Amino acid sequence: MPAGELNARYDKFVVDLLGVIAYGELSAFERLSSDARYSPTLHDRALLGKLAVAEFGHFELVCARLAGMGMDAELAMAPFQREIDAFHDRTRPADWYESLMKAYVVDTISEDFYASVSRFLDADTQSVIAEVRTGETESTVLAARLHQMLADDPKLSSRLALWGRRLVGEALTQAQRVGRRQRFLVGLMPGGAEQAAGEVEKIMASLTRNHSKRMSQLGLTA
Amino acid sequence: MPAGELNARYDKFVVDLLGVIAYGELSAFERLSSDARYSPTLHDRALLGKLAVAEFGHFELVCARLAGMGMDAELAMAPFQREIDAFHDRTRPADWYESLMKAYVVDTISEDFYASVSRFLDADTQSVIAEVRTGETESTVLAARLHQMLADDPKLSSRLALWGRRLVGEALTQAQRVGRRQRFLVGLMPGGAEQAAGEVEKIMASLTRNHSKRMSQLGLTA
Repeated sequence: MPAGELNARYDKFVVDLLGVIAYGELSAFERLSSDARYSPTLHDRALLGKLAVAEFGHFELVCARLAGMGMDAELAMAPFQREIDAFHDRTRPADWYESLMKAYVVDTISEDFYASVSRFLDADTQSVIAEVRTGETESTVLAARLHQMLADDPKLSSRLALWGRRLVGEALTQAQRVGRRQRFLVGLMPGGAEQAAGEVEKIMASLTRNHSKRMSQLGLTA
Repeated sequence: MPAGELNARYDKFVVDLLGVIAYGELSAFERLSSDARYSPTLHDRALLGKLAVAEFGHFELVCARLAGMGMDAELAMAPFQREIDAFHDRTRPADWYESLMKAYVVDTISEDFYASVSRFLDADTQSVIAEVRTGETESTVLAARLHQMLADDPKLSSRLALWGRRLVGEALTQAQRVGRRQRFLVGLMPGGAEQAAGEVEKIMASLTRNHSKRMSQLGLTA
């Protein structure tokens, strides 16, 4: 394969990746800050608001990187709008407990996903992704709040376990759909589509495994 | 009146003022970021999102000041929750045009209000309010976007003029209700309730006048 073609494929991969991250962070910001309003206390409203603001910061970082590559962020995001909107529409939290759980699941799976694709990336893009992955503090805050919530009201466990399964199911279904359509990783693998499919499967399996581990840590059946 | 009593009244005034500002900014953040989702373009979504994030920054500033005074921000905000929520519930934007207009009206009236109470405040509180009043850039951005929107679709004028009148009417009604209940300025005036009522009336009149001026600048009948 000529080097020019390889570069073009790599660039498309990076633009797609940054596009999906940007739109994901923008949507997470909007949904989380709307959900914040239903928090039981003003303290919790401020907590979710702060997390939402951090997501907006990530969105801006990724847009800046796209602009630096001479790419229009809107164009880069457009192919992912439908599936990400569909994910959110299909997983509208019924109350604040479900919002908090959704924030945690989306946050941690995104983190895992960013980590698992980082090894395919050049140093510059890696460092943008690393900045977006400042989320460890956020996940820790969310996990602590969820722990407390489940301790206060153990009856929530079974409902939230079910909700966690739905969230991860919807997230991975939409991700698979996007991945297939955008031929995720295909251009980068010497083994082509088959090898790419294998890599994608590995990523998906590891996202699911880590998710289950986190649910267990919360005392929920994954 | 003994100095201790005067201090206590002044402190209550400041805590009330910071409480209403904090809750106002938190609510504006939540409403604006939820509305952002209905923007016609991703560019506009990012624009409203950025404004919302600035409001959250103001909320945090004011909370930090309250904490510095040894005050619980939640307690300070609580007396204003009902009226501010009522304002937002009674002025739900029907679409993105109305959201943008609402953001502009709320933003500029808040700015005016902050400016008009600043002269009653000590230097420290004044400087917090001044930091919250970084909004001039925001108002300019909103005004420019509204101008463009009205130029693109002149038929919007009459609807938005009406909407602007409703917004300011609701805002001032709720403000008056809060002001009466919290005995706004009363403790600070040598002339007591009567003098305070006069000052409040002057503030209200100037808010209305400035609002009308801004509507005219947009080519709308106020």
